[in-house]
Amino acid sequence: MSEVQTKALLAKETTALLASLSSEVKNAALLVMADALIQEQSSIIEANKLDLARGQENGTPAAMLDRLSLNEERIHTIAEGLRQIAELNDPIGDILEVIHRPNGLRIEKERVPLGLIGIIYEARPNVTVDAIGLSLKTGNAVVLRGGSSALSSNQKIVEVLKQALNSTPVPSEAIQLIEDSNRASVNEMLKCKGLLDVIIPRGGASLIQNVVENATVPVIETGAGICHTYIAADADEQMATDIALNAKVQRPSVCNSMETLLIHKDYGNEKIIKLAEAFKNSSVELRGCSAFVKLVPWAISATSTDYSTEYNDYVLNVRIVNDLEEALGHIAQYSTMHSECIVTEDQTIAAKFMQQVDAAAVYHNASTRFTDGFEFGYGAEIGISTQKLHARGPMGLPALTSTKYRIYGTGQIRQ
Amino acid sequence: MSEVQTKALLAKETTALLASLSSEVKNAALLVMADALIQEQSSIIEANKLDLARGQENGTPAAMLDRLSLNEERIHTIAEGLRQIAELNDPIGDILEVIHRPNGLRIEKERVPLGLIGIIYEARPNVTVDAIGLSLKTGNAVVLRGGSSALSSNQKIVEVLKQALNSTPVPSEAIQLIEDSNRASVNEMLKCKGLLDVIIPRGGASLIQNVVENATVPVIETGAGICHTYIAADADEQMATDIALNAKVQRPSVCNSMETLLIHKDYGNEKIIKLAEAFKNSSVELRGCSAFVKLVPWAISATSTDYSTEYNDYVLNVRIVNDLEEALGHIAQYSTMHSECIVTEDQTIAAKFMQQVDAAAVYHNASTRFTDGFEFGYGAEIGISTQKLHARGPMGLPALTSTKYRIYGTGQIRQ
Repeated sequence: MSEVQTKALLAKETTALLASLSSEVKNAALLVMADALIQEQSSIIEANKLDLARGQENGTPAAMLDRLSLNEERIHTIAEGLRQIAELNDPIGDILEVIHRPNGLRIEKERVPLGLIGIIYEARPNVTVDAIGLSLKTGNAVVLRGGSSALSSNQKIVEVLKQALNSTPVPSEAIQLIEDSNRASVNEMLKCKGLLDVIIPRGGASLIQNVVENATVPVIETGAGICHTYIAADADEQMATDIALNAKVQRPSVCNSMETLLIHKDYGNEKIIKLAEAFKNSSVELRGCSAFVKLVPWAISATSTDYSTEYNDYVLNVRIVNDLEEALGHIAQYSTMHSECIVTEDQTIAAKFMQQVDAAAVYHNASTRFTDGFEFGYGAEIGISTQKLHARGPMGLPALTSTKYRIYGTGQIRQ
Repeated sequence: MSEVQTKALLAKETTALLASLSSEVKNAALLVMADALIQEQSSIIEANKLDLARGQENGTPAAMLDRLSLNEERIHTIAEGLRQIAELNDPIGDILEVIHRPNGLRIEKERVPLGLIGIIYEARPNVTVDAIGLSLKTGNAVVLRGGSSALSSNQKIVEVLKQALNSTPVPSEAIQLIEDSNRASVNEMLKCKGLLDVIIPRGGASLIQNVVENATVPVIETGAGICHTYIAADADEQMATDIALNAKVQRPSVCNSMETLLIHKDYGNEKIIKLAEAFKNSSVELRGCSAFVKLVPWAISATSTDYSTEYNDYVLNVRIVNDLEEALGHIAQYSTMHSECIVTEDQTIAAKFMQQVDAAAVYHNASTRFTDGFEFGYGAEIGISTQKLHARGPMGLPALTSTKYRIYGTGQIRQ
């Protein structure tokens, strides 16, 4: 049997036990795991150094190396994340619905774990810990397939966490790390139907596309974010400037940052030019429609490909539109249905935008950067779903659960 | 452009309008459609006769022809189904959550339509009407791909319903029927990612398997039901007999009927033999484990393939088990996680069964035949989900919805 098969089966065998664990047991285990991370931080940092050295040899860009690197402070933050997960409400066992039927049947709809979750992700080793913590809290087993660039870090982290579980009633086999860094191991996971209950890919567009195209296991798509901000004609200049700049430059590398700015033509040429200067001062390269390039000659002409690109970088498309309909049309065409924003004081226009835009999160007068589990008050998140099925937007604990009907009778049969 | 592409695009263009329709408008349209079915019943029956004649030529079994056939009474029942859908609560626009954040953001989680639903199904023309009614009620557009054996009936039904919509604000393009009866049109639908928001297959195992294996559009699996009933040692004989017989013979062709009966060895040989006789009197062929065949020599030996087969017929596997664990193990191995039942008076054993069995519906002392949208009090259903993601068990209106976060700010930016 392959590594994927073997490990998925081992994890699957723990799912019935995991589903029956009390919140107290699960929370205690999360705290034990957090403590273990701190206790073992030097060995984790040692393992991380191996990854960093390999990355440097392979010419990995500095920004990527930075996301990969672990130090004491980061490990403390990661451990703190586990403690925060322990404090969240446990959704498992919640009764969502009770139905009393005329024939005397009592039907209860109960929240249960999904079972076995597969997570396929790229560099950052903190995802390893988050994913384990969130899965365990919701009574799920998990098979992790991280990026090969973080393999040594992930191996050590998983070893530390599994060892920590040995002193608890939680079976350590519930956590499995796929160490085969061949692409084939990913594709094998995608076909583990009946064994894996869901696959959550976290990473760039090509990773997610491969998962969606090849998985027979149900998938929750995450992360792709071509987000827009639309500045209406009447928008308050200071607010529009603040929101647009924040959405682009506060952290351009993440999915909820803005890629395209749409501006109503009547917002005013002077203000548009001033806004362009503000972006320039923040080192943002601008690509614009012909009307914008006329106003801001140092901007490059934007192509349809530009409008379809998630830059995750200091690059922004700007398009001047004639009216709300043109803005809505642009968004419908290019949006990945992640996060979209309108800046306006006009409640009628705002209401129309909020109703018509089809996205996980639609904002009136606030930066798209708020689409995030912590910012929504959900605590940690396992990702941001950009699909409409099962979960949409920041995925907190309930996204890792399913339901089960329990029906209690006294001998009822169907007529 | 292919038929699938063209029609899916036409339907997609109506989704924003559909999402904005009030419940009153949608309900009125459902009633107009119901009336139209009655008014046009003779032309629908004529079209149905074409399908029946073709079926007879092709040697379709009588039971299949019966499921395909329409008469005045059936059309009245179908029209009544639309009227009942009109009476259900409209979930669209429901606010599921309101979050007030310390920074002043107000976050609302709102129920919205999925958008464009693809439904791939087999013979029965009533599914055409149900699917249209449920989709419209939830503000969704729908692309239908029915079985070729019902094509004439489906064409006429869709024509009648679309014409009926012409007198309402609901765009008739929201309903699209794929008429190409080639398998390729199914496979094209499966790849319509970005256009179709979900595909729901309704039909036999091979249809569902093809969809799951080839779809890039998210899928909700339905219908496969290898359901078990477990008679514990202490079960009340009358209740056990009633429930087991009902689960098998009341309507063997449906997914919530029983395929395998598990009996605790201490239930007693005499009772087991009596139960076997009762099945014999109901024309049920029995296939049993070796212990059962020893008691009931006219039964055939059951194979592992038998335990994995959804007969949908007057055939039943019977296995005698040593204890609850053996019953749970059998169910875990062979169940399609649809509906499972225990008959016992022992609350401890019942609680263990209800907790440990991983299925959409788990019954204590009631027939598995109750797993059904109407029986649960949900009104009509679009199918019974056997997956854990998005919806599990009988799928009422909420299964055809997604959510959207609306975030209201006053210029908030992320720090």
